[in-house]
Formats: sequence, C-alpha cells, structure tokens
Amino acid sequence: MIRAQIVGATGYGGVGMVELLIRHPEIRLTSLLAVSDVGKPLSAFYPHLRGYCDQVVEEAKPERVGQDADLVIFSTPDRVGMGYANELVDRGLRILDYSGDFRFETPALYEWYAKAHPNIAGKPHLAPGLFDRSVYGVPELNRSRIREASVVGNPGCFAVAMILSLLPAIKAGLIDPRSIISDGKTGISGAGKKPSATNHFPERNESVTPYRVASHQHVYETVAALEAVAGEKVGITFVPHLVPLTRGIIVTSYATLRQDVSEAEIQAVYEETFAGEPFVRVLPAGSTPGPKAVAGSNLCDVSIAVDAENGRLIMVGSIDNLMKGQAGVALQNINLMFGFPETTALERSPIYP
Amino acid sequence: MIRAQIVGATGYGGVGMVELLIRHPEIRLTSLLAVSDVGKPLSAFYPHLRGYCDQVVEEAKPERVGQDADLVIFSTPDRVGMGYANELVDRGLRILDYSGDFRFETPALYEWYAKAHPNIAGKPHLAPGLFDRSVYGVPELNRSRIREASVVGNPGCFAVAMILSLLPAIKAGLIDPRSIISDGKTGISGAGKKPSATNHFPERNESVTPYRVASHQHVYETVAALEAVAGEKVGITFVPHLVPLTRGIIVTSYATLRQDVSEAEIQAVYEETFAGEPFVRVLPAGSTPGPKAVAGSNLCDVSIAVDAENGRLIMVGSIDNLMKGQAGVALQNINLMFGFPETTALERSPIYP
Amino acid sequence: MIRAQIVGATGYGGVGMVELLIRHPEIRLTSLLAVSDVGKPLSAFYPHLRGYCDQVVEEAKPERVGQDADLVIFSTPDRVGMGYANELVDRGLRILDYSGDFRFETPALYEWYAKAHPNIAGKPHLAPGLFDRSVYGVPELNRSRIREASVVGNPGCFAVAMILSLLPAIKAGLIDPRSIISDGKTGISGAGKKPSATNHFPERNESVTPYRVASHQHVYETVAALEAVAGEKVGITFVPHLVPLTRGIIVTSYATLRQDVSEAEIQAVYEETFAGEPFVRVLPAGSTPGPKAVAGSNLCDVSIAVDAENGRLIMVGSIDNLMKGQAGVALQNINLMFGFPETTALERSPIYP
Amino acid sequence: MIRAQIVGATGYGGVGMVELLIRHPEIRLTSLLAVSDVGKPLSAFYPHLRGYCDQVVEEAKPERVGQDADLVIFSTPDRVGMGYANELVDRGLRILDYSGDFRFETPALYEWYAKAHPNIAGKPHLAPGLFDRSVYGVPELNRSRIREASVVGNPGCFAVAMILSLLPAIKAGLIDPRSIISDGKTGISGAGKKPSATNHFPERNESVTPYRVASHQHVYETVAALEAVAGEKVGITFVPHLVPLTRGIIVTSYATLRQDVSEAEIQAVYEETFAGEPFVRVLPAGSTPGPKAVAGSNLCDVSIAVDAENGRLIMVGSIDNLMKGQAGVALQNINLMFGFPETTALERSPIYP
Repeated sequence: MIRAQIVGATGYGGVGMVELLIRHPEIRLTSLLAVSDVGKPLSAFYPHLRGYCDQVVEEAKPERVGQDADLVIFSTPDRVGMGYANELVDRGLRILDYSGDFRFETPALYEWYAKAHPNIAGKPHLAPGLFDRSVYGVPELNRSRIREASVVGNPGCFAVAMILSLLPAIKAGLIDPRSIISDGKTGISGAGKKPSATNHFPERNESVTPYRVASHQHVYETVAALEAVAGEKVGITFVPHLVPLTRGIIVTSYATLRQDVSEAEIQAVYEETFAGEPFVRVLPAGSTPGPKAVAGSNLCDVSIAVDAENGRLIMVGSIDNLMKGQAGVALQNINLMFGFPETTALERSPIYP
Repeated sequence: MIRAQIVGATGYGGVGMVELLIRHPEIRLTSLLAVSDVGKPLSAFYPHLRGYCDQVVEEAKPERVGQDADLVIFSTPDRVGMGYANELVDRGLRILDYSGDFRFETPALYEWYAKAHPNIAGKPHLAPGLFDRSVYGVPELNRSRIREASVVGNPGCFAVAMILSLLPAIKAGLIDPRSIISDGKTGISGAGKKPSATNHFPERNESVTPYRVASHQHVYETVAALEAVAGEKVGITFVPHLVPLTRGIIVTSYATLRQDVSEAEIQAVYEETFAGEPFVRVLPAGSTPGPKAVAGSNLCDVSIAVDAENGRLIMVGSIDNLMKGQAGVALQNINLMFGFPETTALERSPIYP
Repeated sequence: MIRAQIVGATGYGGVGMVELLIRHPEIRLTSLLAVSDVGKPLSAFYPHLRGYCDQVVEEAKPERVGQDADLVIFSTPDRVGMGYANELVDRGLRILDYSGDFRFETPALYEWYAKAHPNIAGKPHLAPGLFDRSVYGVPELNRSRIREASVVGNPGCFAVAMILSLLPAIKAGLIDPRSIISDGKTGISGAGKKPSATNHFPERNESVTPYRVASHQHVYETVAALEAVAGEKVGITFVPHLVPLTRGIIVTSYATLRQDVSEAEIQAVYEETFAGEPFVRVLPAGSTPGPKAVAGSNLCDVSIAVDAENGRLIMVGSIDNLMKGQAGVALQNINLMFGFPETTALERSPIYP
Repeated sequence: MIRAQIVGATGYGGVGMVELLIRHPEIRLTSLLAVSDVGKPLSAFYPHLRGYCDQVVEEAKPERVGQDADLVIFSTPDRVGMGYANELVDRGLRILDYSGDFRFETPALYEWYAKAHPNIAGKPHLAPGLFDRSVYGVPELNRSRIREASVVGNPGCFAVAMILSLLPAIKAGLIDPRSIISDGKTGISGAGKKPSATNHFPERNESVTPYRVASHQHVYETVAALEAVAGEKVGITFVPHLVPLTRGIIVTSYATLRQDVSEAEIQAVYEETFAGEPFVRVLPAGSTPGPKAVAGSNLCDVSIAVDAENGRLIMVGSIDNLMKGQAGVALQNINLMFGFPETTALERSPIYP
C-alpha cells in the first residue's frame, strides 16, 4: 500500500485527486496539507465528500511535508514543489507536481519559460540537480521514462489537449510546425477555486472572453514537447478563451499541410499513433469532440478535418480539464510510477448529460 | 452472472443504467432495445460511451422482450411495462420498471393516479394480478419487500426527494400531514432526451418556469407512500419549477409543526431515522443541501430548519435526478432484488465542481 | 433639467441607474461617486458603457455628497444614506435610497427590522426626524405619497415580487395572512458585483442553494407593508434560493384560502387591482410568469392558481431584479417624485430570448 | 410614416425586428405574416411582448405579401424573399431580406455560394434582374449604396463579426489575405427558434461543439465582400463553435502580417478606419471584446493584438448576434434606405450584467 500525501489539498486540483484516490485499491491518503481551510475535515469545505473523505486538513508546515508518505503530490503554484524536491528525492520519496516546475527537460527550457511567466519573472530553478530525474508527465509521449522518474511534472490542461491533437501530424511531418494556430476554450474550474471579479457568476454567464492573447504559459511546454518530436522549430499562436462551462477544454488547431495528403490518410495516421492508448479516442471522420463526451473521465477525444481549398489541417482535441487536464493524468502518471495498471481508479466512463 | 435487458435503452434513463451496469461485477447487459435509433451501436448516439458500450441497439419487438435475460429493466413511459409484466413474471423473470405502472400498492390507488394523469386518462391497470408481487421501489421504506418482489416500481425523481425529506417528520408525527407545501426545482434532463420548445437552450437559459402547478403526477405516489406511514390523510400542494441545470433536483417543503419541539430534537429524529442508510445524508444543523453536492452519486442529502415565529418546519431534500432519482435508485433496487451488496457499482462519490 | 448624483455608482445598482438615466430627457447625471474604482471613467470598469457614459468616477468624500444635485441616489448599503439624509433634506434636496434605511414607516418597525438584520444588530435610526417625510417606494401601494416625499426608500428585490403577487389576495381578504409561504428564486446579480466563494462560477453553475432560511431581511418590509393593507397580523415563511441566472427573480407563494372562491373570481380580483398599473401584468389563467418574459424591463408579471383539493391559493410573481427590483423601480419612484410621466425612460419592452 | 410588413414574424429574427420597430417613431408595423403560429396575437407566442405587440399574426399567403406596406422585411430562409422580390420592386416597394438571397453582388458570386449551400444545391437565382438594384447590407462597407437600393441583403451574423474585425487590416494591406483563420463562437439563438436535439438544454449546457468545419455558409459572403476590398484573392478557414450562451458571437481571427508593423500602428489604422462609425468600437490596446459588453445593442466591438514571435495579427470581433448580427443591422439598413438618422431606435446602450 503506497502512502500518499497531498500538499494543496483544498484547491480543485487537490480535491480532484482525493476523489480519485479514495477509490484506489493500492494507494492510501495519509495526509492532506493546505495553507488555508485547515483544522477541519475536508468535507467541511467540500460537502460532497461528507462520508467519503472526512480526514482533517492540516497546515502545510515545512516539516510536515513528506512525513508518512512514499509519494508527495504537490497541487501547488509554481515554485512550491521545487523548494521541497531535493530533500524529498534524497529521502527516496517520489513526487508528482502540478505546476510548471518540472515540465521542462533542460535548464535552458525552464529559463525560457520562467522569463515569460509573469509570476516567475526569470527566477532560477531551485532544484537544477533534478532535471535528470524528472520527466514531463504526458504518458503518450514519455511513458517509459515516467515509470522510472523520481519527479513527474504534471502537464498543463491546455497543453494536454494541444499536444495530443497535434502530435500525430507533427510526428508524421504532415504539417508545417511553424504554422500552427491553436484556439482554446476552457471551463472556469481551470482558474481554480479562488473567486475573482472575472469569474463572478454574473460576469461569466453569457460571456466569452479571450485572455493572455498569444502569451499563455501552457504554450511553452507544448512547443518544447513538440519540438522534441519534430526535430525542428515549432511556432504556435495560442489564444485561450473563457467559456461559461464549469469543466472542459476544447482546442481547435489549424496548420498548413506540407503535402497533398487526403483526409483519410491523415485519419489513419491518427488512429495508428494512438492505437492501444487507453485514454485517447480518435473520432471517426466527420465527427468532432467536445467536453460533454469526456466529462468526468480521463479521456482525450481527438478529430481531424482537411480544408482542401486552403490547404490546411484542422485538429480538435477535448478533455475534462480537471481529469485528463489535471488529477486524472496525475493519477495515470502515478500508476505508471508505481507499476500499477495504468487505468487503475480511472476506469469510469464519462457521465452524461 | 445476472443477464439484464434494457427496454428503452436510448433515453437518458436507459443510458444512465448502461453507465452503471458496465461497471457492475455481477450483472451482464445482454441486450439493449429501443423503438428509435436502432441498428447502430449505442455509442453512435451517445459518443461518450465509445469504447465503453458499443453494443448494437435492437428494435424493441415484442418477442425480443425478455429473451436472454433474468432481469428486464423498462425505461419506458407509463403503460409499456405493465403490458409485458404478466408473461415475464410467469416465466420467472424479474422486472424493474421506471414508470408509474407499479408504484401503487392497490388497484384503488392506481386508479386514483390513473384518473389524474393526462396520458392515462383513467385506463385500467393491465396486470392487476401483480399488485401482490410488486412493490414501490423506495429502499428506505420498503427494503425487505423489494428483496422478494417480482416487480419493482422505480420511484419518480421528485417523489424520492419529497419522501426522504418528509419521512422522519411524518413518521414521528411532528407535522400536520395535511399542511405540506413542496416547492420543487428540477434540472432539464428530468424531461428526457426529446427536444421541445420549452427546453430549447435559448428559451431555458436564464429562465425559471413553474409547471403543472399543483398537478404534477409525482405527488400521487408521494402522498400514497406517506399516508401508509402516517396512518392518516396527507395533503401536499406541490409546484415544480424548471431551473437551468442539466442535472439535479431540490425540493423545499414547509409544514405546520404539531408540537412545540426544538430544531435540535427534530435534527435528532432525522439522524436517527436514517442512521445506517447508505445513501441518505442528514446535514448538520445550519447547512442546506443542493444538487451540486450529490451530482453523479446515488445520494440524497436532507436538512431541516424551524421557523419558530410561524410554527413551521422547513425540510429540504436534494438528489441527482438521473441517479437517486432514476438509474441509481433503480440499481439500488436491483442490488436488493438479487441479493448483491446494496451499494455495488454505486460507490462513487459525487463529482465536484 | 434635474441634476442627479449617484453615490455608489460602480455597483450593479448604480450602473443600472446610469444605464437608465443616460436615456432620460429630464434628468442629467452630474456626478458619480464611489469608494473604490475611482479616478477613471465609469466605462473603464464597465466596458459596455464605452461611448455612453465615460464620466469619471469620483471619490465619495462626505463634502462631495449632494453637490451640484437636486436628487441624490444612494446605491449604498444600510446605514450610509441615513447618515447624510438630515442635512440633504434640510438643504432641500430629495433622496432615493436603495437600502433598508427608509423602507419602514415608523421607528418601531425600523427597530424590529434592525434587530433582525445581522449587519445592523439593533443600532438606532440616524434620522428619526425623517420618518414623516419618507415613504416606502412601492408605487402600486404608495403612489401619491411618493410624489410628495423628500426621501423614498426603494424596496428590496424580493419584496417587490412578494408584495405585488400577494397584494390583491390580502387586500380582498381572500387568504389567511398568517398562512403565507413564499419560496423565492433569484439570479446572482442580486448579490451584487463583489465576487464571493458562493458565487464563483464553477460553484454556482449547475447549483441551486437555499440561503438565509426563514431569515432573509426582505421579509420584514414585506410583512410591514402587507400588514398595513391587511389591518391584521401577517406571517410569511420565506426561503430564498440562488439559481444559476444572471438576472431575474421569481417567487411562488402559497396561502390558505379563507373562503370558497373560484379561480376565476380571484383572477378578476387580481386584474381589477392592477388595472391601469403601467408595470404590472396579470397573466391569463393557466399561464405562469418567469424572469425571461420581463428581462430588461420594469415589469412585474403575476399569476394565480387554486389548489382546490388542499384549499390553497398559489401566487407567482416575477421581475428583473435589477429593474423592477432595483434601478427600474427607483426611476419609477423618481419620475413620480419630480412629476415626470411615470414611465419615462422605462418604456422598453423586455428583451428576448 | 413608413408602413412595414414582416414576413416570418414569429422566428427570433422577426421578433427582434418587432422589438425594435415598436419604438421607432417613423415606422409603423402594419402586418405580421408567418407560416405557423398564425391567428393569435404575437404576444401569445412571445409573452414578453404582452402589452407591447398584441397584433395578430396572419398567414403568409402570397397575395398578402406586400399589402399595405412600403417596406417588406423577409425574416425567412433562403429562396423565399427572392420569389417575391421582382413583383414587389416593380410595385415600388423596398425589401430588406435576412437570407443569403441578396448578399452577393453578381450572378457568378451567387452561383458559387448556391453550389456550396446544402439547402440550395446550386439552384439558380430567381430574380437575376435585381442584382443591379440590390446591395449587401453592411453599412460600414456600402453605406451610400444602401441608401439607394431597392433590396438590401442583410448580412449573416458571423459575417458581420468577421468582416468588421478583418476590414481595416485587409484594406490597409497589412495581412496576407490568403492566410486567414477565423475561429467563431456563437450563442444558440443563432440557430433560431426551432428546437433540435443539438440544442436541447441538457445537451448544450456544459458543451462546446465545432460544426460545419470549414464549410459554414457565412464564409462565402465574407470572402466575397473582402475580396472586393482587397482586390485580390481572400482565403479563410472558418470553424464555428456552439457555446452555451443565448446571445452573442465572438470571432477570433489570425493572419500572417505582410510587413513589420507595430501593434500601435495597426491600432491606429483600426481607429481611423472606424472613426465616425456609430456602431463600431475599436477597443484600446490590451483589451479584448466579448458578447457581454455588446448585449442588447447594435454595437460591434473590435480589438487587435500582434504575436510578434510568429509574425501574426490577431483580430477579435464581437456582436450580439440578434442585433448587429440580425435585427439591429437590419434596422440600421432600413434607416439608411429611408433617410432616417442611422441610429434611430438603436440608441440603447448594452445591458449589463
């Protein structure tokens, strides 16, 4: 039985992990740490968990982090997990981190990201010695390395949808990787639990809002991951939009086709790339994915279409941002890290309507 | 392994049952019958089920009903299940019926309901011989009889929320049972899968609509069930309202207190009544339930409050209308009928947010 | 040309008044005061007003309140307007106040309300000399007194819907005024512009939440106003519910009929009571109101139905909470105060869908 | 006083026109024609209009079309208006048509559109003699010709948002007109009043759905209008998405910059292009438009941003699809046709929140 601790247990990302782990036969939640809402059962803040997880939330004191645990899950902002990582890894613990701290494979890539991220402002990585022992947690890209890693950097929600929908086309050289435009739409839970003027119900309802136009932080890890696949420069113009959903992400991407290739051939490339993947469904030609068909599950649905007149490929990917975009992919990574069947506690079909 | 057949598999009620049964270790879905959308995999109409249930939907021909099945689940309108019931029961099959056909314990009660129901218009019951072998499927009322029944009449969604929130007060004689007012709010999935002008998105969004004012059919089974408990006449003025949710029901009921009893005493009565019930949570004093805290689960959350100045008790009950109000309670009943642990395939916590 | 000043201009109530006054031919907005968001054009905070109201928001310094104004509109919390009222009235200005400060006709009634209101906690009225010169601003009750008043206490949003739907039945003695139960549903803009955990989009979407069960502050002014009409004690058990709308209120009320009177007779009483009212529509028998049919307008729609079996009258009232429940009724009151046609700048039909 | 008739009065487009015309001082609605919902007042189907428009809807018999009217507004599908146009124009009437019938300036362009439109399937134009007397109704492009035209082809909702946000960049030669990608998001009222499985509330809520991928009919008129401006070939890959709003459209477009030009310079080009336009607001640098800031108004908000790293211009346009995208722009056109001030009955600011 693996002992797991969640740091940042009271945000949506932490609670999503709790919802999954209470059904996991091989992992036991030994402690829930947070900086606010401490001293009461988790179910006092999240009444849906009454009777399912009445464990008391403890203050995230530094000395408590990593106690009674084989695995520490950091559901925390950038720069928190990396502050603990060296010591925890030295002690033989393994880490799953939700932030950007361990999503980049080299110091140079992290620096590139850190300079562009407004909250990091170019500060240096705090655990540079771990670049060799950490991996970017997209199982479809890095499955075998995730199995061995001490630290897994869980991917950003938009990045998951972008990478999986672009990957086969990039890998097969079908598109010009500098011509990519990705238009994202996200539900509001992606902004987390903290209320804001932007996401106050009356402001958000009946509203669609582009934000961080061409400057969203998830584009960096996407470009880095796809360049490793492409072996050449990748350029993505990415504009995310807030849409009035609670859960769900859909990204529609556009790129210039490099060759005269039919929709059927591209469809075949996609199906082949993801054959055997437990959580990626390539939809049949003519259909398109959406958050409704993946809600509550760890699935990513992907579709393609060709705009022959303009010589472009249109690729669409959709996930539940709190599952395949956060806690779900995190558990998929954890299952890999500890040698459990990859789908353990993730078997549930989407919930509809 | 129990073999189950669903008749009416392509409505929300049928699909909800499919979502549950594909995870049930002791029940195998042998056939899906419907009158429309036949000849293709269920996942062609419900893309979320791609890879989870690709079974082909068959036409619901009379001779097909009951074939290769130990259990037939009728997710059909009133008057369908009762047409098949005699023969199926004679053959030793067991029936779970979603409609009003088997929700009443006596011919007189059915007649009372049938006269009031616009679609039945007083037509007689087609299987009067089965009144002795059928039971109203509210486990919290009729658990032991459900275990033995050949036919279980699954309750209406509003009825579940009303009965469970009113039951302890009625049973303990705390309220005048003729003074009850129930104000219901339901998500739109309760109206089923068929599109209508009323539930067209632009009409329903930003809208709240009272309907069937003081004439909704679910009030009959509620009154009948509570009169059996009260041993006296029960009168409920019930007004349901459509609210812009996909899932969820909440009913706020009001009744005159019979005696000068404190909120704490009533709270204790409620907690005692439901002690040990796997799917009813009595909320602590001062809190109130809502559909968000039960979404995707088979739970019913209940709370009470006293309006001392006006001598009234306020009782609130909330469920997921497609789970504890439909497929979930149906599976709870089926688990009882076949001797499986009552919570099998219903263990999942609510999903949040 | 009347010169108007808005204190609290940057909340929803203030902005709603701005939207109306920029179209009013006889009133000129001379200043917008607020405690936050000052020093920039109103349209910097409310981009929809760009080009319509680019007036700079000024800090609400005490000495600025009442300058260059014939009319001061306080869109402020309880206890703000009453602090300025004495001096402004002495200087001959007139006041429209959105809070509970001037909704009660006698010191005793205010005291009763103040004791129950958690934010007032029984503090005494600061302008007791104005009880004679102020009036509760429900035009359908107090039209002629509003014309003469120095100070008008604009009604609470729920109170408008309750009073107008209950008034004819109370006035005609049709119902037992101690038997009233009012179940309210409100859109989230009623909670104002300030973000909160409760009204964070992911928490509010797909959610219905009862709140301030039997203790909402609007019930006091409703009871006080209706007792003045009834000439006897009125008792209302009121439970408001948050529903996922931006705008709109609907209240369904239930009361015991005093006499054996037909639905048609009650319908006639309602139609007669409101004949000639510019903003109350009594719906034909068999239909029910809802927020969608009044959105963006100053209308209150009202319907009745009889539950003959239980001897109860069901009364439903619906308004746009930001119009007839706030800025609209405020302007209706202002039009009366200054002798303008009552419907000036309020003529617009509801907007649909 | 101009006498106006609406054909197709009971759809959202017709009702939107009614809402505007009942406030127009120079236009009188003499008749409302429709093929369904006839014989009753319009307010029987649209209760929000009770007391505002209780005019009886008449059957749209051919001989009734054009009677007692100086202006006929066809709020009808493709191919209806063109069947009446010859005769009405001969009789001296003027026509505003909502469909694609008169959006194209030449027979060849119409043919190109007609071949691609699934419901037209290449059928020939029925009033080819009117190409010289009709004009595409985008006032910002064709203001002076609209003043003189006998027939105005009201633009498609997506086309308005695309044309206005792309126009300055195309006109100034800033972008490669063959590199355009437009990603659209629309509220559901754009699909009209008729219920469908796709837009049933439970299916649409919490859902985002791409549709008519790279094949939406509005792209044709957009390309045609912009080629006339560009003087060269325009290519647009357009993917519209259904988002769970009632009202509102936002289109985010991406194109390759032709020259090294700064964001500030492009901003200046946009502001200059639309200086004096009563209904286009160019937002300040750094902000983005959205449906919420234009709701209920005839405005189109536009913003631009440069993705310098990838050499692309991002252009965003947002409108209320039922106003600037339908009835609002129609009235703007009508005001031009009859020499009324262009903003008559369109002065209202957006409604918020």
